[in-house]
Amino acid sequence: MADFMTETEHRSSGVSHSGAPGDRRDSGGTGPGPLDGQEAAALLERTRALVDPELRAAVESLPDSMRRIARYHFGWEHADGTPAEGNAGKAIRPALVLAAAAALGGPAARAAAVRAAAAVELVHNFTLLHDDVMDRDPTRRHRPTAWTVFGDTDAILAGDALQALALRLLAEDPHPAAGRAAARLADCVVELCAGQHTDTDMERRAPDEVTLDEVLAMAEAKTGALLGCACALGALYAGAGPEEAAALDGFGRQAGLAFQLIDDVIGIWGDPLRTGKPAGADLAARKKSLPVVAALASGTPAAAELAVLYGKPYVSGDSEGIARTALAVEQAGGRDWAQAEAADRMARAMQELARAIPDPEAAGGLLALAEFVTRRSS
Amino acid sequence: MADFMTETEHRSSGVSHSGAPGDRRDSGGTGPGPLDGQEAAALLERTRALVDPELRAAVESLPDSMRRIARYHFGWEHADGTPAEGNAGKAIRPALVLAAAAALGGPAARAAAVRAAAAVELVHNFTLLHDDVMDRDPTRRHRPTAWTVFGDTDAILAGDALQALALRLLAEDPHPAAGRAAARLADCVVELCAGQHTDTDMERRAPDEVTLDEVLAMAEAKTGALLGCACALGALYAGAGPEEAAALDGFGRQAGLAFQLIDDVIGIWGDPLRTGKPAGADLAARKKSLPVVAALASGTPAAAELAVLYGKPYVSGDSEGIARTALAVEQAGGRDWAQAEAADRMARAMQELARAIPDPEAAGGLLALAEFVTRRSS
Repeated sequence: MADFMTETEHRSSGVSHSGAPGDRRDSGGTGPGPLDGQEAAALLERTRALVDPELRAAVESLPDSMRRIARYHFGWEHADGTPAEGNAGKAIRPALVLAAAAALGGPAARAAAVRAAAAVELVHNFTLLHDDVMDRDPTRRHRPTAWTVFGDTDAILAGDALQALALRLLAEDPHPAAGRAAARLADCVVELCAGQHTDTDMERRAPDEVTLDEVLAMAEAKTGALLGCACALGALYAGAGPEEAAALDGFGRQAGLAFQLIDDVIGIWGDPLRTGKPAGADLAARKKSLPVVAALASGTPAAAELAVLYGKPYVSGDSEGIARTALAVEQAGGRDWAQAEAADRMARAMQELARAIPDPEAAGGLLALAEFVTRRSS
Repeated sequence: MADFMTETEHRSSGVSHSGAPGDRRDSGGTGPGPLDGQEAAALLERTRALVDPELRAAVESLPDSMRRIARYHFGWEHADGTPAEGNAGKAIRPALVLAAAAALGGPAARAAAVRAAAAVELVHNFTLLHDDVMDRDPTRRHRPTAWTVFGDTDAILAGDALQALALRLLAEDPHPAAGRAAARLADCVVELCAGQHTDTDMERRAPDEVTLDEVLAMAEAKTGALLGCACALGALYAGAGPEEAAALDGFGRQAGLAFQLIDDVIGIWGDPLRTGKPAGADLAARKKSLPVVAALASGTPAAAELAVLYGKPYVSGDSEGIARTALAVEQAGGRDWAQAEAADRMARAMQELARAIPDPEAAGGLLALAEFVTRRSS
């Protein structure tokens, strides 16, 4: 599943949506606006201060064996059990829960939604633990993944336990929205599973067997769904009705898709010094990312060339081949399409936001977070 | 995780607990009593009729990809998607939910608890899907396991989705006990995970590093916990207070341990024609089952011989070695200990049952189910 937690440290300003419907960048207040990143940074810091104690208390309630793996995964402990500085991530999802609750219900709703925010973060981390096993990813947040340290079995079990903890937090919450929030979060888990299935399934298929609609649907299920759910849960905790919750879900989903599009562009054309990944890593892995699938579907001569290049396995060190592949994606229109699509998704996100929260001042926090996750430097 | 679903078809009458405190085999009514298996069979059939529609509706709500794997796992479909006769198991756990609800709250409580019964069965099947991946078990209910058909990734994802479905069923249930039941079920999932961790961890350790207390605690977490939880959920749905729910949890746990002890005895001395497994399969796998660990801890000469035998890998076809190993376990007292311990656990189960439900007539269904899972032929 896409992870904003480290990428965002290195990147800024990848998608422009000035003039997008519902854009409120000039609205409200004095001092630092939502779009310079300072408001988002402050929101994230406040979220961590509010949610971390709840998250840690939940993890501390685990039996020793599961707690050890969870603590390592969250970056609170080294593999040998000694305390670590902790890089448990930027807490984008819990920040969306709290910002949505605050936008619709003010500080009281934000305070009431802390448990729901922790539940969303637990679900996110359950999926990271399992996805890393399935994808054989060796690193996460600049550290060896849990399965490389504890083995597949323990990483799977710790993920299972975190899902249970997440739903237990909501089950134990006396808030009147807790039941609906738990059902919504469980639904989201099912969607995340289907998204991960589609992703791993697509990677096994030939590039010309994958359609752009499929990749977009997969990105929505894998990345958009939990961001949308986070916003919807915040809305439910603020007492929102089904329409408002659906609009905030749409906002989070569309912002998540915009993020994924920009992330895929950076996966091809990003600066390795900034991204921490080798240039063209996604191309070397023959990943069916959004710009690549868009390029392959373009019917251009460059698409045909790209299909041939993607049909052969990558030969280690062939930087010229990677450069040719990247050029073919660009010439086939994959880069332009992805950037235009990201801008379009952000515009849709803003429309959904305006639908649920007409007051620009109230929507400022959510806007700042959406900007934050799609602001990158390539 | 232990599975009653096929073993019980082949086995009967392994543990005697006549005279056990709280034993009510002579209590109540005319016609077939609880102990001849007919009452249990009727309860299981009625449970399947009540719970199957709820279970199928939950599975049908899954996205295509997840639904396909779940349908196969439940035995409703073949791997190619064509309908199958269906052997989704005996439904012991949902039967315990309904029997506990009926014992404490009558038919209305039983009817109200159907959703909770389906949730327990979904959790059980989520753990089976994951355990089979971890343990590399090739067969389940006489069919290839899901991971052998769909791969590890899809089996893990389908398990994740079933856990989410289980907790969603309770989250959507307007019953006043649903929230507490969901929290209780989530707690149980965490305990099941810790039990599976201990099990896989113990199998990697040397036999003399494993204590009897550890194996008993593992069996309680892996097998007893969900049976106890099933009974506790039924109690909650009948409006029981914490003490009654705890007593029914204890009943289920102790009956689960009795089952596991008998199952382990049969894994060594069972008749292959009846059990469907080769004789001494657990010994060939050097499994640290309860009779083996008890034997190793006995301090007898036979224990020393057993330690030497277990220290060497099994050579395929060495039936003489297996016979010698089984004899050493028996001579070291492992068989007698396991049978006595099973009788003791059943006695404790009866005590807990009498504590929660003093009326023998009302407790009859639970008693019949406990008898059913521990009645086996070796």
